[in-house]
Amino acid sequence: MEINGVEIDDTFAEAFPIKIGRVLITAISERWALEAAREATGFGTSVIMCPAEAGIECIVPSTETPDGRPGVYIQICNMSWKSLETSLLARIGQCVLTAPTTAVFNGLPEAEKQFDTGKKLGYFGDGYQCEIKYCNRNFCKIPIMEGDFLVEETIGAVDGIAGGNFYILGQNQPAALMAAEAAVDAISKLRGTITPFPGGVVASGSKVGSRYKFLKASTNVAFCPSLKEQGVCALPENVTAGYEIVINGISREAIEEAMRVGIRAACTVPGVLRISAGNFGGKLGPHQFHLHRILD
Amino acid sequence: MEINGVEIDDTFAEAFPIKIGRVLITAISERWALEAAREATGFGTSVIMCPAEAGIECIVPSTETPDGRPGVYIQICNMSWKSLETSLLARIGQCVLTAPTTAVFNGLPEAEKQFDTGKKLGYFGDGYQCEIKYCNRNFCKIPIMEGDFLVEETIGAVDGIAGGNFYILGQNQPAALMAAEAAVDAISKLRGTITPFPGGVVASGSKVGSRYKFLKASTNVAFCPSLKEQGVCALPENVTAGYEIVINGISREAIEEAMRVGIRAACTVPGVLRISAGNFGGKLGPHQFHLHRILD
Amino acid sequence: MEINGVEIDDTFAEAFPIKIGRVLITAISERWALEAAREATGFGTSVIMCPAEAGIECIVPSTETPDGRPGVYIQICNMSWKSLETSLLARIGQCVLTAPTTAVFNGLPEAEKQFDTGKKLGYFGDGYQCEIKYCNRNFCKIPIMEGDFLVEETIGAVDGIAGGNFYILGQNQPAALMAAEAAVDAISKLRGTITPFPGGVVASGSKVGSRYKFLKASTNVAFCPSLKEQGVCALPENVTAGYEIVINGISREAIEEAMRVGIRAACTVPGVLRISAGNFGGKLGPHQFHLHRILD
Amino acid sequence: MEINGVEIDDTFAEAFPIKIGRVLITAISERWALEAAREATGFGTSVIMCPAEAGIECIVPSTETPDGRPGVYIQICNMSWKSLETSLLARIGQCVLTAPTTAVFNGLPEAEKQFDTGKKLGYFGDGYQCEIKYCNRNFCKIPIMEGDFLVEETIGAVDGIAGGNFYILGQNQPAALMAAEAAVDAISKLRGTITPFPGGVVASGSKVGSRYKFLKASTNVAFCPSLKEQGVCALPENVTAGYEIVINGISREAIEEAMRVGIRAACTVPGVLRISAGNFGGKLGPHQFHLHRILD
Repeated sequence: MEINGVEIDDTFAEAFPIKIGRVLITAISERWALEAAREATGFGTSVIMCPAEAGIECIVPSTETPDGRPGVYIQICNMSWKSLETSLLARIGQCVLTAPTTAVFNGLPEAEKQFDTGKKLGYFGDGYQCEIKYCNRNFCKIPIMEGDFLVEETIGAVDGIAGGNFYILGQNQPAALMAAEAAVDAISKLRGTITPFPGGVVASGSKVGSRYKFLKASTNVAFCPSLKEQGVCALPENVTAGYEIVINGISREAIEEAMRVGIRAACTVPGVLRISAGNFGGKLGPHQFHLHRILD
Repeated sequence: MEINGVEIDDTFAEAFPIKIGRVLITAISERWALEAAREATGFGTSVIMCPAEAGIECIVPSTETPDGRPGVYIQICNMSWKSLETSLLARIGQCVLTAPTTAVFNGLPEAEKQFDTGKKLGYFGDGYQCEIKYCNRNFCKIPIMEGDFLVEETIGAVDGIAGGNFYILGQNQPAALMAAEAAVDAISKLRGTITPFPGGVVASGSKVGSRYKFLKASTNVAFCPSLKEQGVCALPENVTAGYEIVINGISREAIEEAMRVGIRAACTVPGVLRISAGNFGGKLGPHQFHLHRILD
Repeated sequence: MEINGVEIDDTFAEAFPIKIGRVLITAISERWALEAAREATGFGTSVIMCPAEAGIECIVPSTETPDGRPGVYIQICNMSWKSLETSLLARIGQCVLTAPTTAVFNGLPEAEKQFDTGKKLGYFGDGYQCEIKYCNRNFCKIPIMEGDFLVEETIGAVDGIAGGNFYILGQNQPAALMAAEAAVDAISKLRGTITPFPGGVVASGSKVGSRYKFLKASTNVAFCPSLKEQGVCALPENVTAGYEIVINGISREAIEEAMRVGIRAACTVPGVLRISAGNFGGKLGPHQFHLHRILD
Repeated sequence: MEINGVEIDDTFAEAFPIKIGRVLITAISERWALEAAREATGFGTSVIMCPAEAGIECIVPSTETPDGRPGVYIQICNMSWKSLETSLLARIGQCVLTAPTTAVFNGLPEAEKQFDTGKKLGYFGDGYQCEIKYCNRNFCKIPIMEGDFLVEETIGAVDGIAGGNFYILGQNQPAALMAAEAAVDAISKLRGTITPFPGGVVASGSKVGSRYKFLKASTNVAFCPSLKEQGVCALPENVTAGYEIVINGISREAIEEAMRVGIRAACTVPGVLRISAGNFGGKLGPHQFHLHRILD
């Protein structure tokens, strides 16, 4: 299979189940909604050593937010409901409550699972917090230095999927990287998915396990161009650099759409030679996303 | 004391000791150095509930970095050397090693305290990592999908100060916020300090303690404009919003300079009425920064 | 009429007919599409002394562009077909043909009026240009240093409207400015309109005519807060700053939608006191946009 | 000569004399200073068909501007004093006077040549403008909707140089483009120079003259990779894309420094193969910048 002359490997991405909380942050301007969202989703690339996986899903125009202000959806992902609850409390409390002019809306009001994060954040009000109706929803109002912080009492979460992915293999670093940027640009317009790594891109895709007992993941040697001489890298001669796009999402369909849109965008960039994906014999997880089926 | 008609309270900022690690990230372009830096310093506003306090110190022109590429200094701050070591390992490993095209240099090579963070990150190479000389320093080279990741073997750290601060009190939210933005713009050009909150600004300055036993910090009621009727807010009638700029730095002098430069910038914005600072009877820490002395 | 406590004046915006050419620029990434668009639409605020009015209409996701790359719609506006043709040739030739990785698509392929701008730009190829089919349209291919530049042979244009507007009057500069930013954020998500002034905002709204014969427009004294003592400014005491949002669009409906969406967004910002609009007894033009009717 | 394995051609850039006006724009925040600067310098790549060449020189920290606010230096360049005066009046009047919160300072107060641009802009005040002392300089104060616009009465200009340049030749478009971005990042930190093309980069470097009488410049066929088969392109097989960085500056030394810093930055990017420069047998102009001498 080829797109614009780029070979698409007949392989699949292996992914795993994760719990995803979703939050809508609004602010006085798009710029300030983004500042809060970036802080709240930082240090959130992989649950291997980050306290959560997190990312910005998309910008929401003021015409589509409950309070008529510019907004941003973010997702926060953890392996258990318990750790997700901790993440939501800490990240919203430390990074959105503290951010200028923000309000926090439940990003999954229909979900079965609901955390009373907003209610708990209320204690920061030191007794001066109160319940109010806001945009026809139940909110907590907390007096703060800039005025009042409004946060919906509950934040919803769902069983989602983490680790959806594809690899972009290129003639050199800049070609693969610009293709990764084009892919992330495209995915950032969709709803339901995040690309949690820096700028949406992974420079150091990993495999499950390592030769060291204390390390659960290590560099994906089969895709490391500088290991060709050692005979552990199977990449062809003309591939000298690759990037991985990792995608988390609230549904299988959302991840498939993101992979489709991202791969197509990557294949418009000169110097991109091949698209592949990462799978680990089921050691990572039960979900499979076959490139050829998605792109058909 | 007045600057441009803005009253400067005769008060002081109270601050506390913290351990600060400093890292220079370089990348193929300023944009990608910043992406890595943002991810590595996210979820890093306050040690109350974040795993570290962290922020971008400043952009470094390619003419001033060891490898001649655009760079960014970041700081990562923890209460103990042990937790700082954990933070450095996790944040560099998960957010910079994974970021496209980055290299990592020790940001405090002269400091007495040095962590072997780079060496430890090497294990990600699964046996293919190696020591090299790079820019006349000792580096670890780790094969990854984009090529080779270069990280200096040691990262230095010093006893620094956290919680340097000033308050910007305004006629309304936008006035105080734009002044905060001007202050952060100014501080971002200096070396040695970070403003770890979202966009550099705190909307919800806190006091030490609360009426709830489980909560170590709560809203600073004396500066909450919406609590005027309750009699706990001492702000004058015309102040309806305030922001706090929190500053961490590697030395007392760096924080003083940042406060001076930040306050002066804030006082150029229309609608700013008063500058104050937060102190808590010594409950927060031993360091004091008196506004009038700094601005003299 | 009030929105969020902000008074909406019972007045109207006066606007005038203009010719609008519309271009879709695509590029390797959204960032580079925007760089080209910004250069091509710069020095384009008002036909009073600029060679055209011009602006970025909106970002177009790669899933919606003919070549599958990120895109940006721009509009270029002139008083006559002749001057518009000159503008299109010069702005696309000097600012898009020269910009990295761009391609140029006709933004109004259905319009009756079509300029052969792309064909004329072909001469830059010095004989090596050629006609090709691209995305099922007629293009000119021009060999350049980065490879080949692709530009659609014709660029469409329509009779549009310039000078749609509203005023945001605030307690101080930052409040009115942040409201203007929120309005521009909102309008930038719509199709069919541009806000041609710097960052979408006018700080110095003008009236038609002046006391000097050589000057066709001058400061709108009735809305200049610093002229209250002179008795020429009719603004109430509490208004100390105002901004104008000027909107050009390819149809009356597009401008009405932009005014509606922009005013609503502006009214979410604290410190905004009043919304008004500019009209000049018909001296500017025949089109009228009544605020109350639009907002009903 | 080689830098990081990149071959530096033994050639020179040919450049020509130009008149340069320099302006310091300050604003409430760096963001708004940049918005004004971008609008004022847009549609300003080449005097061939733009009304001026123009660009952002550098950001100026608030600690270094006369009014203590964030600032940006811009340069505006024309072939004659007369056309430069027209450009200054139109670009400052239409793009900075109209931009939110800006003030305008003379960027070359020591220059012999001074235009009374600020004074002339005063007429926009329709009789309400006045002279004032501001930051110890002579300013014109013009009442506008946001308050008062302050512009220094005179704007200085010097005999400068346009067309300083170098070429970045790469294995593919993304490699050459990322190198161009790194070069522009580096040059943007220097004082005295601008890179007037979109994002600082030229995709379609030109030669003097063409086979068409009406066209003074046309594609630089010797450097067009897609013309290798026609025998007019002399580039080696492995070069498939090139970009030109064009530099204007207020002195020969400023341009040399920008070329040196820019070339060095470009040579850090993988996939860059060669650096060259454009010269045209003296048809473009009398100034020569020899790469090997500059880089020694």
